[in-house]
Amino acid sequence: MTVTTRADGRTAADLRPVTIERGWSAQAEGSALISFGQTRVLCTASFTPGVPRWLAGKGTGWVTAEYAMLPRATNDRSQRESVKGKIGGRTHEISRLIGRSLRAVIDTKALGENTIVIDCDVLQADGGTRTAAITGAYVALADAIDWARARGHIAKKAQPLRDSVAAVSVGIVGGVPMTDLAYVEDSRAGTDMNVVIAGSGDFIEVQGTAEGAPFSRDELNRLLDLALVSGTELAELQRTALSDALEPGGLA
Amino acid sequence: MTVTTRADGRTAADLRPVTIERGWSAQAEGSALISFGQTRVLCTASFTPGVPRWLAGKGTGWVTAEYAMLPRATNDRSQRESVKGKIGGRTHEISRLIGRSLRAVIDTKALGENTIVIDCDVLQADGGTRTAAITGAYVALADAIDWARARGHIAKKAQPLRDSVAAVSVGIVGGVPMTDLAYVEDSRAGTDMNVVIAGSGDFIEVQGTAEGAPFSRDELNRLLDLALVSGTELAELQRTALSDALEPGGLA
Amino acid sequence: MTVTTRADGRTAADLRPVTIERGWSAQAEGSALISFGQTRVLCTASFTPGVPRWLAGKGTGWVTAEYAMLPRATNDRSQRESVKGKIGGRTHEISRLIGRSLRAVIDTKALGENTIVIDCDVLQADGGTRTAAITGAYVALADAIDWARARGHIAKKAQPLRDSVAAVSVGIVGGVPMTDLAYVEDSRAGTDMNVVIAGSGDFIEVQGTAEGAPFSRDELNRLLDLALVSGTELAELQRTALSDALEPGGLA
Amino acid sequence: MTVTTRADGRTAADLRPVTIERGWSAQAEGSALISFGQTRVLCTASFTPGVPRWLAGKGTGWVTAEYAMLPRATNDRSQRESVKGKIGGRTHEISRLIGRSLRAVIDTKALGENTIVIDCDVLQADGGTRTAAITGAYVALADAIDWARARGHIAKKAQPLRDSVAAVSVGIVGGVPMTDLAYVEDSRAGTDMNVVIAGSGDFIEVQGTAEGAPFSRDELNRLLDLALVSGTELAELQRTALSDALEPGGLA
Amino acid sequence: MTVTTRADGRTAADLRPVTIERGWSAQAEGSALISFGQTRVLCTASFTPGVPRWLAGKGTGWVTAEYAMLPRATNDRSQRESVKGKIGGRTHEISRLIGRSLRAVIDTKALGENTIVIDCDVLQADGGTRTAAITGAYVALADAIDWARARGHIAKKAQPLRDSVAAVSVGIVGGVPMTDLAYVEDSRAGTDMNVVIAGSGDFIEVQGTAEGAPFSRDELNRLLDLALVSGTELAELQRTALSDALEPGGLA
Amino acid sequence: MTVTTRADGRTAADLRPVTIERGWSAQAEGSALISFGQTRVLCTASFTPGVPRWLAGKGTGWVTAEYAMLPRATNDRSQRESVKGKIGGRTHEISRLIGRSLRAVIDTKALGENTIVIDCDVLQADGGTRTAAITGAYVALADAIDWARARGHIAKKAQPLRDSVAAVSVGIVGGVPMTDLAYVEDSRAGTDMNVVIAGSGDFIEVQGTAEGAPFSRDELNRLLDLALVSGTELAELQRTALSDALEPGGLA
Repeated sequence: MTVTTRADGRTAADLRPVTIERGWSAQAEGSALISFGQTRVLCTASFTPGVPRWLAGKGTGWVTAEYAMLPRATNDRSQRESVKGKIGGRTHEISRLIGRSLRAVIDTKALGENTIVIDCDVLQADGGTRTAAITGAYVALADAIDWARARGHIAKKAQPLRDSVAAVSVGIVGGVPMTDLAYVEDSRAGTDMNVVIAGSGDFIEVQGTAEGAPFSRDELNRLLDLALVSGTELAELQRTALSDALEPGGLA
Repeated sequence: MTVTTRADGRTAADLRPVTIERGWSAQAEGSALISFGQTRVLCTASFTPGVPRWLAGKGTGWVTAEYAMLPRATNDRSQRESVKGKIGGRTHEISRLIGRSLRAVIDTKALGENTIVIDCDVLQADGGTRTAAITGAYVALADAIDWARARGHIAKKAQPLRDSVAAVSVGIVGGVPMTDLAYVEDSRAGTDMNVVIAGSGDFIEVQGTAEGAPFSRDELNRLLDLALVSGTELAELQRTALSDALEPGGLA
Repeated sequence: MTVTTRADGRTAADLRPVTIERGWSAQAEGSALISFGQTRVLCTASFTPGVPRWLAGKGTGWVTAEYAMLPRATNDRSQRESVKGKIGGRTHEISRLIGRSLRAVIDTKALGENTIVIDCDVLQADGGTRTAAITGAYVALADAIDWARARGHIAKKAQPLRDSVAAVSVGIVGGVPMTDLAYVEDSRAGTDMNVVIAGSGDFIEVQGTAEGAPFSRDELNRLLDLALVSGTELAELQRTALSDALEPGGLA
Repeated sequence: MTVTTRADGRTAADLRPVTIERGWSAQAEGSALISFGQTRVLCTASFTPGVPRWLAGKGTGWVTAEYAMLPRATNDRSQRESVKGKIGGRTHEISRLIGRSLRAVIDTKALGENTIVIDCDVLQADGGTRTAAITGAYVALADAIDWARARGHIAKKAQPLRDSVAAVSVGIVGGVPMTDLAYVEDSRAGTDMNVVIAGSGDFIEVQGTAEGAPFSRDELNRLLDLALVSGTELAELQRTALSDALEPGGLA
Repeated sequence: MTVTTRADGRTAADLRPVTIERGWSAQAEGSALISFGQTRVLCTASFTPGVPRWLAGKGTGWVTAEYAMLPRATNDRSQRESVKGKIGGRTHEISRLIGRSLRAVIDTKALGENTIVIDCDVLQADGGTRTAAITGAYVALADAIDWARARGHIAKKAQPLRDSVAAVSVGIVGGVPMTDLAYVEDSRAGTDMNVVIAGSGDFIEVQGTAEGAPFSRDELNRLLDLALVSGTELAELQRTALSDALEPGGLA
Repeated sequence: MTVTTRADGRTAADLRPVTIERGWSAQAEGSALISFGQTRVLCTASFTPGVPRWLAGKGTGWVTAEYAMLPRATNDRSQRESVKGKIGGRTHEISRLIGRSLRAVIDTKALGENTIVIDCDVLQADGGTRTAAITGAYVALADAIDWARARGHIAKKAQPLRDSVAAVSVGIVGGVPMTDLAYVEDSRAGTDMNVVIAGSGDFIEVQGTAEGAPFSRDELNRLLDLALVSGTELAELQRTALSDALEPGGLA
């Protein structure tokens, strides 16, 4: 892969500095404030015993997610969706993507009849908010499961998490494939791809879009190569973040 | 590729019977009733001179799409989104996909300051409605452009269409990659992928989702192989459909 | 009655060509694609055992209807009601009219605690969509009842249908009363009347509106005369359509 | 007509006591609090110079109406439509009926480019609210036109009102046709008909509905006979109410 | 306090003429049409045995309130909130204020598991609509409780009302503190305060707002002095209104 | 005042630890992450040249505010208002309060035809979110004004800020008046009062509510005493926060 120097000094294969502030929320059962450079997403996991009525009695749990952006997370203020009275297509689409990605690593039988709702609120946006959200949500989810196991809502030996999950956005900018696009790169990208990757290195979701000209199979392959490298790095960062003992704050 | 016989007798690489009733609507500037087996989608293209205010004066046109399903297109009746008072996430997502796919083959400069709205209404659903919609929408779009050129809204020599576009759903069912999934196959698929392909054979959109276990890079490649074969067949069917003179009906 | 030749060659008392494609939908329990000239409405009947909670335990069934128009059914594209987020007054009014008209011929005791929802979706509009919808809806309803009887949801000897029901729009155009107005006639009509008629020839609904000057009792009477003639013809067409054995398609 | 004594002592052809408190509102350009027995509707007419954008420059005015019911106008409290977030089908239907009925007697050319919005708010409901609303709305409309003429918004000699308009509900209760149904009668009626009648005695709107069995042409005729008698009485009451000098209150 | 003569001849401490038409509605369990000068609010109390599900089984009742304004209650017509599809911030805020104010004098244990919904509909607005609404709502509430006690829904000896409640708006207009502001005064007020006062003279709610410059503690005290005087007068008027035997009308 | 020790060791007159992270957002023209103990609110100020259409050409600016809470800011997750499709009464009320409070210290003439939108998003809630929001919003507002002055949108010598503004919640808990209630205190408070105070010590808003028994004038006075002391402290904290040079981050 060609070593390209980008505006912020990264090479094509470099992630931005990624930080994970685990346990940021004093109230949620699991939480993480994740940053990919200037992109900052607060992820909380809310655990509730029981499942929605349509699932009751089946012995399986439920994990769902909601994504949103603060009105001034972006460079220009956008109108609140609560004020508009409806959720936009983009928000819906990303919420569904996060939910699917997490469910792909959850064993809902092992989770038992419990519900976990993940909220990913973008406090500041500089590209890659949906992939940062997935990566942070996994950490919040893992902590909520530990919280529930410690309180007996989940059996001591149950392993609801089958694997970890992380995500990265890759794209072709000025003809060069690169990973973890910042906003200025993303807005110039000819092809844009969000890749959700399990800890095993297999794919959970691949979403590639030609913003300009259609892309070739060779370009697709080079983007996937980059994504897999970043996926491995992110999985390692998640493991490290989760390896410390968590001293939960909390109001209660 | 292994020759697998499916419930309806197809091999893994066989499309269902595809028919395109071009000019189905007497009123739209372009239209096609497309069938992939029992899946039937009515696609209309509405041409209007002028563009939305935010585009005015830039010399470029606008193409957008809306997808919807009749309440009894499916085996169980679903509530109308107009009655619910809001559009669901799935509908939003598919409408956006169709719009992006068509814009990928449109030269908006050549279109001039004109707007084309594509409506894809699923009259009957048996899997693959979004990919059938894209495939039919292209035919309606092409006819609307011809209609506009014939009336001088678009310059005689302008070529707003840079290529054709078709789409197909592929997936891994019972461990076997196969193309053009019917509903019973889709609901059992471990991995599901919608692939939007230009006439050139390059990709416009690749959306692969692990419904169960994550999928490997090898599986991804086998699905893309199948999709490319079907894409070529669909492009040929579109060409054939568009090669006849159209005797437009119409109330006017 | 004066023999007036209209734009399409009809006399004042002539219906447009009416066709009824029974069983159009492979999935609904009853369905009909009905055409009055260029007006085409897809009517489906969805049968569900059980009734809404507020009716439970009373031993009576429930029939309701929803009417809608595809955005490009008309000459100019109209915005989807799902996108607007609310149903317009006209849509509400027509849905209620269709529901009332069908309930007028239903014996809800004989129907038992079962629900039938009729959907009338206008695929193409050229005047008289609500009356075509009622006429087609009856055919779909009759088939859904037969379907339910064949499966034991309705008692073998029960006769939930007390009579047939059809509807026609009549009006005074250029001073001349005429039946089954096409859009160009309807838009010029001074008085417009929708008449819903039982197979017995009695009235179920009479809705006459002065679009311009008020209308006299004599004019009212001449319009009713025309409507009754057309009602008889439509009842005959329904009988014919329903007399054939239905070879239901269907995905199941 | 058989003389039938009803629960409140009326014969079949008797209206309930009708009162019209003209100028009830101190702020509206025209207003009337109308009562048909216990049914009480506050009708206001709001005059604004100018027309909606889509009518501008055509030299014609615009009259529209909105109907609503206070939540406790009825015996059981109903939820506010503002709280539900949408207007029900019945409300829409009645608002449209009132607007059409008033426009049928308005010469929009003579009105000039002015807008009059009629609000009919039911303060107490005991059957016949829509017909009371139309009858009262005419009085408010007439006063708003006089108000506007006095201030020069409408030419001194212009006659925007071509005729008066009143309305009455008639129906067949226990087999007997009767006029001006109170709620207890209306809820037992087999056939229900709302008739809007111009001062000339011609019809503006005839809406007859079979609540139970279909109705015969003879029944239709007997109901129209009753409606025409009541229409004449109501027109006389309107004339009387409008013949006095109005001492407008008002905050300004 | 300086004796200031206002536009309508009142001194700073004078209320406008206040009238309370108790039992205005023939259908509600309690009702009052209250006027403060030209401000007229119809208050109804709807009593229902039972409580919302979230309160069931706790042995306590529930009182809530909704406030709304007719579109032409004001000098310029405003759009209906039902038409807009949502309730504005001001409406919400006032509905909540009325509910809190009434609950402050209700012993919900003594009320038992019963619900009372208060509707305050402004028929005409000339300032002070929310305070008039609270003052009238108390009368309707008291009558609804008597109605329920007479029918055994509330125990004979239970005293759900611990005290009366009334409210008044006071403000500083042109530097002068004054009570019960009419609209023309309110719109010029530098400080505006709504004070809800129990019959005991204690405060239930104090809401003071600087419309222009911030206000001093001394000004606050002078406004509270005025409010307490008016509160005493209003409590006396309520007592008088409630002292008569009520001859309830009613349709039933 | 009695020195009462509270659960967290504070006396009745003690604020919780208050911190103000100025310039938290890299993108907003002004921002502050403010904490009152565990309550954390992100306040951003978005500056836009120009005003809404209804203000254009009057030479005055516009300041408005929106308040919202993340779904898991509280101990139990609440549904998003964007998902519900409407903003609740409480949210509306607080947004309006913040906007009024800021406008009370703004000289809109000096601001010129510019708009500032303040967003206050509660990231974590432990009582006093609205008063923390006002206190933080002032800091964000001040920075946005400096930003605009530095770029010439506001005249160099213009002083749009006439004073500072801060707010505090006070209440009577267990009979004892105390300042800056944490959630556990607030939920037990008999009387709850939010007081918005200008830097001058005058009142901008006083909102006192009896949650249980009505409160006496003496209690009101003791609460105001406490609020004024806290107001002085908060004004000092704001001054300190604003006295440092701001090294704005920022993506551009």
